[in-house]
Amino acid sequence: MIYLEFAAVEQAAAIAAGLFASLNKRGTTMKERKTIVVALGGNAIIEEGTEGTITQQFANTRKSLTAIVDMIAQGHRVVLTHGNGPQAGVHLIRNEAASSQVPPSPLGVIVADTQGSMGYMIAQSLANALNKAGLRKEVVTLITQVVVDPQDPSMLNPTKYVGPFYRAEQVEQLSARGWIIKEDPGRGYRRVVPSPLPLDVVEKETIRDLLRDGKIVIAAGGGGVPVCREKDGSLEGVDAVIDKDRASALLASLIAADQLIILTGVEKVAINFKKPDQRFFDRLSVTECERFLAEGQFPRGSMGPKIEAACDFVKRGGAEVIITSMENASLAVEGRAGTVISA
Amino acid sequence: MIYLEFAAVEQAAAIAAGLFASLNKRGTTMKERKTIVVALGGNAIIEEGTEGTITQQFANTRKSLTAIVDMIAQGHRVVLTHGNGPQAGVHLIRNEAASSQVPPSPLGVIVADTQGSMGYMIAQSLANALNKAGLRKEVVTLITQVVVDPQDPSMLNPTKYVGPFYRAEQVEQLSARGWIIKEDPGRGYRRVVPSPLPLDVVEKETIRDLLRDGKIVIAAGGGGVPVCREKDGSLEGVDAVIDKDRASALLASLIAADQLIILTGVEKVAINFKKPDQRFFDRLSVTECERFLAEGQFPRGSMGPKIEAACDFVKRGGAEVIITSMENASLAVEGRAGTVISA
Repeated sequence: MIYLEFAAVEQAAAIAAGLFASLNKRGTTMKERKTIVVALGGNAIIEEGTEGTITQQFANTRKSLTAIVDMIAQGHRVVLTHGNGPQAGVHLIRNEAASSQVPPSPLGVIVADTQGSMGYMIAQSLANALNKAGLRKEVVTLITQVVVDPQDPSMLNPTKYVGPFYRAEQVEQLSARGWIIKEDPGRGYRRVVPSPLPLDVVEKETIRDLLRDGKIVIAAGGGGVPVCREKDGSLEGVDAVIDKDRASALLASLIAADQLIILTGVEKVAINFKKPDQRFFDRLSVTECERFLAEGQFPRGSMGPKIEAACDFVKRGGAEVIITSMENASLAVEGRAGTVISA
Repeated sequence: MIYLEFAAVEQAAAIAAGLFASLNKRGTTMKERKTIVVALGGNAIIEEGTEGTITQQFANTRKSLTAIVDMIAQGHRVVLTHGNGPQAGVHLIRNEAASSQVPPSPLGVIVADTQGSMGYMIAQSLANALNKAGLRKEVVTLITQVVVDPQDPSMLNPTKYVGPFYRAEQVEQLSARGWIIKEDPGRGYRRVVPSPLPLDVVEKETIRDLLRDGKIVIAAGGGGVPVCREKDGSLEGVDAVIDKDRASALLASLIAADQLIILTGVEKVAINFKKPDQRFFDRLSVTECERFLAEGQFPRGSMGPKIEAACDFVKRGGAEVIITSMENASLAVEGRAGTVISA
């Protein structure tokens, strides 16, 4: 009780101080402060071509975070989301290798595992980088559930590749497990799972509260743990995975973020990518994006969902989305790199 | 910016309302409201003798949470911590089974994995139980790092058993990996790892803030991810595990909890346990506990660390610790079950 009152008084004082500071500085630096959701690709943590040991993953994570530190140094409120493709793949391989000894985990539980371990790696690496930069900020990793519709079309027609590649002669045996196996053209056979659209983020209020309190939040890792909401309001796990860019766009709009930054392998969005008539864009409207999507300019497995996520954020009222590479993220926040997608 | 100010004003109003309510009710129900840390045993989630599928783990978790819902219904602020022994064991088995395909994860990363997946299971089950009881409360799972001393004596002399049992003829090969293998008398050979004392909880401020905001917090799962703090303030993972009861006691004192409740398999603490002169206790002082510990009344692997954790919390200024079974937790909060340990 004493603790509660003390905390409340302390906090009221802090709020008053914060309001005063913000009113005081209005029109100067404060109006530049944004709430930014930054979506890190899974490969920001496991570098392609490396073995992916935890030491390597930590090293790669550290390299990735310079731009994030810059944003925080500029006073922006930052939520980090991240993919988990390579890491969930590792869990699926382990699940399978030990399936005669211990029961395999469903996909949702694997997503939660990776939220824990990747969140830990990112949080620790970021806290260390902030510490080095002399910034005192708490970094918090939240386990995040994301609501999907169990009747989503993708539940009946799974298309998202997960886990390792298999040989043609293994397909029959894998199908006997109830898995759906499809050919990933030119690469081998792979399990496909549903990837329903995200509809709500269960922990959104908490994420808002933490940002308000000045924390850096890591949330919706791997697109979030997919759950459905029953009629009585209770939550139930769904055997699926959610696209991390779509989940990031939804989260960004739910917390009224000013900017969504999607970090990927290229500095700008292009049409006719890697062809002689390749063309990069500084800015794209939602209408242009939708036209290029319809033309098949953006492949399903890579740029496609990023552009869809960008359009979704803007259509829900978000101001702008920036798609760029890790190296250009700091410049992008100031509007000096990347492709900006807006209404 | 608008969002920030709006949120701050909203919050200031909420705090004013909260203060008013608390002053208004002083001396009546409000003074009964406590901050309680409840430590769940790992077997609150995997029941012994079951296969431990995720479905079974969810079912068992649901059964475990009735008492927690009662506490929340009574208006107490609750932090849940949990063990992860059986679940970390599953991860270690999978790590090993797949070690020729993917690099094994270190212990700290496995703890973070289990914080994610067990936190998800507990949070979802608890949110559903609260929903059924008509209580609107957000449940939040935080990935938690706990600081240890890399010079802790246990770093040089590991004694904590982890993972599966091995046969005598496997010991040589396992030792070649750099593992320390000891005989778990009567059960087989097992890997032992360091279990240093917890010194600080990295996310303590956030946990306090979340409680203040009325959230139910799940934290320090599996005793927390062990880290050490370097001279420059940066954090670095340590290959060890932390006893979850010790971590819970530390966390309870850092957040100035009124009560620490350690849930285990028995209703009360006993000396001469399972012997003809067995004696159960309603109350124990720290002095009595320390005497019985010195007499070897409480085995190292089970009641010992719980009693040590209880003494630690009280010595740091905590009012009381209750050790009891899951079934008796609700009665225990009201002082009608369990063993109370106080100064």
